[in-house]
Amino acid sequence: MRPIKVVIPFKLDCAKSRLSSVLSSEERGKLALAMLEDVIDAVSGLGEVAILMKDPIPDGAPFDRLKSRGFDLLECPQELDPALNSMIEAEVRKGWPSDLLIAMADLPLMRPSDVEGLVRTPGDVVIVPGRGGGTNLVLIRNPRFRVSYYGLSFLKHVRKAEELGLFAGVYESFRCGSDVDEPPDLVEVLIHGRARTAELLKDLGFALSGKREKARAGCQRDDRVE
Amino acid sequence: MRPIKVVIPFKLDCAKSRLSSVLSSEERGKLALAMLEDVIDAVSGLGEVAILMKDPIPDGAPFDRLKSRGFDLLECPQELDPALNSMIEAEVRKGWPSDLLIAMADLPLMRPSDVEGLVRTPGDVVIVPGRGGGTNLVLIRNPRFRVSYYGLSFLKHVRKAEELGLFAGVYESFRCGSDVDEPPDLVEVLIHGRARTAELLKDLGFALSGKREKARAGCQRDDRVE
Repeated sequence: MRPIKVVIPFKLDCAKSRLSSVLSSEERGKLALAMLEDVIDAVSGLGEVAILMKDPIPDGAPFDRLKSRGFDLLECPQELDPALNSMIEAEVRKGWPSDLLIAMADLPLMRPSDVEGLVRTPGDVVIVPGRGGGTNLVLIRNPRFRVSYYGLSFLKHVRKAEELGLFAGVYESFRCGSDVDEPPDLVEVLIHGRARTAELLKDLGFALSGKREKARAGCQRDDRVE
Repeated sequence: MRPIKVVIPFKLDCAKSRLSSVLSSEERGKLALAMLEDVIDAVSGLGEVAILMKDPIPDGAPFDRLKSRGFDLLECPQELDPALNSMIEAEVRKGWPSDLLIAMADLPLMRPSDVEGLVRTPGDVVIVPGRGGGTNLVLIRNPRFRVSYYGLSFLKHVRKAEELGLFAGVYESFRCGSDVDEPPDLVEVLIHGRARTAELLKDLGFALSGKREKARAGCQRDDRVE
């Protein structure tokens, strides 16, 4: 099997803004970091891990810990697509020494076994759908592929591969498909999570609430019900 | 492998009420039937299929078609849990001639290959989580198990098995985990669906809309945007 380099784009500034109705800015930063560390634990067995940050890398214990664990922290003040595509092009110039796995940083349910399933999936590129048409992970084995996030990126990535004459594998997974962006997603973490992110949510006072008979379960925080 | 009998609870009356902001009552009935037929196609390779209906079985082409395909239509005017548990007990009295797979009728992304993964999962009972803590399918291999739907049924079913000293397998699947209850779920059908339900939504005027840059993709219907 070819070596794999993992790239995780990460943003701390205004992180997870769609959770602002239930979490303060500081808490959303903590959540983003907990999720990042859970994602790293799921993928770090594959090989080198680089964290791609749009903003200047802050000082502080979480980032020192990541550096001391040997992960690359790269600052790249571009938007997501140009930042990632520049990175792909840099690997092309190096002769494509390893395949590239781009993993979103908000997949706290993902475990190493879920990532193994992705790596075993055939394809010049393997695309992992998220909720609502997103792409949660993409494994790039052919250096001609470029990413195009935002909006319906899952379908955009499938079409991009087709246009290039590449075979797009699709790896569907309950855990890799569960990205955390909106309050109902926290419920999935409380039910199925076993790691840092689930612990953090419990520490912040979130608990499951199955009161509403017909609706999906929600979660409540202390006395506030979401 | 032991034979499997499939039971699909189905309700046409007031079906899918949480979609009433985007679909009329008649359209929700059509959607419920399309999803039922997609689910039947995914599971019918396993063996006998029974559709458990709370209301009197209506006349009309869809039900005639189901009967003519050899599926049992059973009328059972009880709530979901007592109806299903009565059925389990009836199988116990017959000597448990086959294992029992209870499948929800709103899983239009599910394909035969997804159900094969479930059947291969070990466990006295195998539970398939849905969105928001629900149970989308449960395969009962031990006749002592009883169901308890509504609310956080996934965790309730895991606990129920533990209390009985049974081994609960969990089968996590992107497609089996995608139940359709609320407007954002329609997006998943438009993106990942290939069968009747996706066709029906297109016929009803639904189309994908990826306008909002940061939010998950939505869908729009003619000129109405959801």
